[in-house]
Amino acid sequence: MTSFAKLPEPPYYAVIFSSQRTPGDDGYGEMAERMVELAEGQAGFLGVESARDADGFGITVSYWQDEASIANWKRHGEHKLAQQYGHERWYERFELRVAKVERAHGMR
Amino acid sequence: MTSFAKLPEPPYYAVIFSSQRTPGDDGYGEMAERMVELAEGQAGFLGVESARDADGFGITVSYWQDEASIANWKRHGEHKLAQQYGHERWYERFELRVAKVERAHGMR
Repeated sequence: MTSFAKLPEPPYYAVIFSSQRTPGDDGYGEMAERMVELAEGQAGFLGVESARDADGFGITVSYWQDEASIANWKRHGEHKLAQQYGHERWYERFELRVAKVERAHGMR
Repeated sequence: MTSFAKLPEPPYYAVIFSSQRTPGDDGYGEMAERMVELAEGQAGFLGVESARDADGFGITVSYWQDEASIANWKRHGEHKLAQQYGHERWYERFELRVAKVERAHGMR
């Protein structure tokens, strides 16, 4: 799907979404791809990184310019439907944490 | 290794570590386990979540009480050695972002 996000200098916001998938795909893969595509078109979207292990535990971190862009994305109609399916079908459990990134560095 | 971290109410800090592993284990698995064990003994450590996909791209988020506990962990002797091996052997690339978690919710 994605690997490293290309981000500006901090500060910016991170939405850390940890989840345990239910067994089977059940439309999840297609919707996950669609959500990335849709998020990329949102104002204030900066990037996303995602990894899921063989046991179905995954972490997706999406990066946003500010709290307002996170709030707008949360309210997006198609994303709201995906959230509903997430609750009902795709996730056994999830935790979502919103954080302000203060500093960053890396090695390439 | 771990799945969901059991965390207090925000605010607290998150260290978001995204990495691409080099091929092969080369002592990585053992050191990664040891680092979790060691971190768990540090003052201010709150928890850790980690996922790595089949292509070797992974996200580890460790949670800390404050900036001081993150700084102490960064300076820890055995962790410093692991950081050095990380640079030299285990990672093709990594990005590290330090963020203050402001709010959180979940579904169980």
